[in-house]
Amino acid sequence: MNDTIKYQLDETRIPRFWYNIAADLPSAPPPVLHPGTLKPVTASDLSALFTDALIEQEVSTEREIEIPEPVRDIYRQWRPTPLYRARRLEQALGTPAKIYYKYEGVSPAGSHKPNTAVAQAFYNQQAGIRRLTTETGAGQWGSSLAFAGALFGIDVQVFMVRVSYDQKPYRRALMEAYGARCLASPSNETVAGRDLLAANPAHPGSLGIAISEAVELAAQRSDTKYALGSVLNHVLLHQTIVGKEAMAQLDMAGDYPDVIVACTGGGSNFAGIAFPFLGEQLRGGQRVRVVAVEPAACPSLTRGKYAYDFGDTAHLTPLTKMHTLGSSFTPPGFHAGGLRYHGMAPLVSHLKELGLIEAIACTQLDCFDAGLRFARAEGIVPAPEATHAVRGAIMEAMRCKIEGKAQTILFNLCGHGHFDMQAYIDYLGGKLVDRSYDEAELAMALAGLPSVSA
Amino acid sequence: MNDTIKYQLDETRIPRFWYNIAADLPSAPPPVLHPGTLKPVTASDLSALFTDALIEQEVSTEREIEIPEPVRDIYRQWRPTPLYRARRLEQALGTPAKIYYKYEGVSPAGSHKPNTAVAQAFYNQQAGIRRLTTETGAGQWGSSLAFAGALFGIDVQVFMVRVSYDQKPYRRALMEAYGARCLASPSNETVAGRDLLAANPAHPGSLGIAISEAVELAAQRSDTKYALGSVLNHVLLHQTIVGKEAMAQLDMAGDYPDVIVACTGGGSNFAGIAFPFLGEQLRGGQRVRVVAVEPAACPSLTRGKYAYDFGDTAHLTPLTKMHTLGSSFTPPGFHAGGLRYHGMAPLVSHLKELGLIEAIACTQLDCFDAGLRFARAEGIVPAPEATHAVRGAIMEAMRCKIEGKAQTILFNLCGHGHFDMQAYIDYLGGKLVDRSYDEAELAMALAGLPSVSA
Repeated sequence: MNDTIKYQLDETRIPRFWYNIAADLPSAPPPVLHPGTLKPVTASDLSALFTDALIEQEVSTEREIEIPEPVRDIYRQWRPTPLYRARRLEQALGTPAKIYYKYEGVSPAGSHKPNTAVAQAFYNQQAGIRRLTTETGAGQWGSSLAFAGALFGIDVQVFMVRVSYDQKPYRRALMEAYGARCLASPSNETVAGRDLLAANPAHPGSLGIAISEAVELAAQRSDTKYALGSVLNHVLLHQTIVGKEAMAQLDMAGDYPDVIVACTGGGSNFAGIAFPFLGEQLRGGQRVRVVAVEPAACPSLTRGKYAYDFGDTAHLTPLTKMHTLGSSFTPPGFHAGGLRYHGMAPLVSHLKELGLIEAIACTQLDCFDAGLRFARAEGIVPAPEATHAVRGAIMEAMRCKIEGKAQTILFNLCGHGHFDMQAYIDYLGGKLVDRSYDEAELAMALAGLPSVSA
Repeated sequence: MNDTIKYQLDETRIPRFWYNIAADLPSAPPPVLHPGTLKPVTASDLSALFTDALIEQEVSTEREIEIPEPVRDIYRQWRPTPLYRARRLEQALGTPAKIYYKYEGVSPAGSHKPNTAVAQAFYNQQAGIRRLTTETGAGQWGSSLAFAGALFGIDVQVFMVRVSYDQKPYRRALMEAYGARCLASPSNETVAGRDLLAANPAHPGSLGIAISEAVELAAQRSDTKYALGSVLNHVLLHQTIVGKEAMAQLDMAGDYPDVIVACTGGGSNFAGIAFPFLGEQLRGGQRVRVVAVEPAACPSLTRGKYAYDFGDTAHLTPLTKMHTLGSSFTPPGFHAGGLRYHGMAPLVSHLKELGLIEAIACTQLDCFDAGLRFARAEGIVPAPEATHAVRGAIMEAMRCKIEGKAQTILFNLCGHGHFDMQAYIDYLGGKLVDRSYDEAELAMALAGLPSVSA
């Protein structure tokens, strides 16, 4: 039997710097626009929502940004995370490819999200902020910020999409165990929420609405800021620790990826694993294919339009140019709640436009099939989001088999599925179906994009 | 802020030997008796249930038993597990004590149970066994054996206590995700199960009944053996890797425990952390206080009788001398399902009789209170079982504060609570109550102990 091999870095090798891909891009991404003036936003426009240090990171073009020592001290609790060579999976697939996966499920919240939650909580604490507001879908981000808030003594208030709030009480319980306050969104605590509840008291909510509520609340109080778990440049920046560690670990293995695979919702775990390698390539190093795997039911990169759009439903956020399905688009329900967002990180969208990354869309059933294969070979049950990366990696491994190529595949297993067992129950019980979005609704949402050219 | 410190061993330092405390005991524990003849069991009596290698370990008095290389290869996926110094918790308690915890929740199944599941699956595979049967309560053991079975290509059939089967679908889903078959016990697949269902079709089941079913099935087929997740000597042996690693990690920290705390159900995680240190003491090394923390609702060590008893309800298992509440005793429902067993490991019971360990009983509410304090200070939400160890460690830390002593406390955080969030929901919602057992029922169960003297 070929066993899984672990490549474990010593904790002294936790990276000292995040990698900022903005330093190496052949062209800068289009500017972010103010929602009122439609002019490029200034730092002071953003300061109602974010603390100065994070705004600086958002616009920085420095290649390396130092990770503060108190953040590294907390990372040390679970980092460096392991890199595994999935030899049992390779054997089960009969592929000549080498499959490596970086495993972020060892964090206390079970996913990659604490990498940025800890950093954001730290900078806000340093700035004297007492409270952070945020949104969450399935709850991975909300529970991670709750964890970070507990460590830094910051109150955390999470607007959780109502349908998830009702269906997924366990992630909510995790937030509350960490001492955070979790509200169903739309809520009665904001104008945006009250308006929607007045029209429909049973409104199921959406990520876009929850963002509107969190932003509205943060903008009202000087001791309160907003925290976002994906999409923004500084969030993607904090995740690059994943790829930097993976690079050092592959170096231990004497290897380098031909292909990198990650799932994409807002883009942060994808950026985390891929950007450091893309940076090498942009600086003249080895070329690497990078494949984003998105859900077929919410396919922003493969079916969306590259256009200016709002990040939220109430149109309180700045406008960013990104691959979007339209801020009014509501994807059908599926289990990978962390991938149910209408837009894509502007940096990831820009790379797609530059032809530096590829994207594919996979159905839920195919992804759960891949997730179970992986669990039985490697012993780890992936989160529904992460099954998309597993699916993409298996597709690449099978391509290698057909082509007879012993390529090296690296993917990001961004979280475990211990909070998502209902999805596996549904899948194993044959109750899971692939629901597509409504084509007419998508066309309407795209037609409704704000007419902005910049 | 004082941060948590991690002591991480290099994977080359995964112990090569399990530690067998039988080699160092001042007197041997009383013999195990055949349920029919009431004479000491022979190896051949046990061979219907266990494979030879495990029977040899069960009766061995060798101090060091080599861990097979294929087992170490799989351990390597998550071992060595981290040892943490809980400086944030120390600070929150204002104690002069140093609190260290060994964290077993990083395993793929989220607890210490895979340490023995992998070993048992390996030895059975080597012996050509195709199928393993077992019982499970809350599901930690069942899911761990399912994990190990998937890796070694062995079919696993788990009898899960019906009340847990109905109330805790997520651990069941984890077993099924690994490809195991999970049945509600009592089931229609065994004589023991059918008899009980005939009398009461809605029988809630118990661990003792599930053991009877698993044993009955294993005894019928030569390609099938039985696997137990705690209690037996060889199971405790496999867990000693926990304490051996902890000893090496404390050595890195330049420290040695004054007190070791662990929760006790069947006794395996307790033995795992404590036996290597007790061995040092028995061989003339430093003395260490060892405190077992058991649930007040199922207090075998503190309220049970040290007597011969059966391990199961249908009285199919051999008799062992242990602290027992009687095999007919049914503890009230509480969330730490892994601690709901009428008996205690014979080795742990023997140590208690020898005065080498102490035991205390804690209520569920006190334990969840401790669990939340721990989560907010250290960022890890403990399993309900593990909250007992947290509670015990906090009590010791507060004693140190009162006495002004800077002692070193080591405890075993045997699993995370990600599958147990309903318990936290109940606790946070004020719905959890402390239910005691029925004193009259306990008296009856103790009166009904088999009259055996050996």
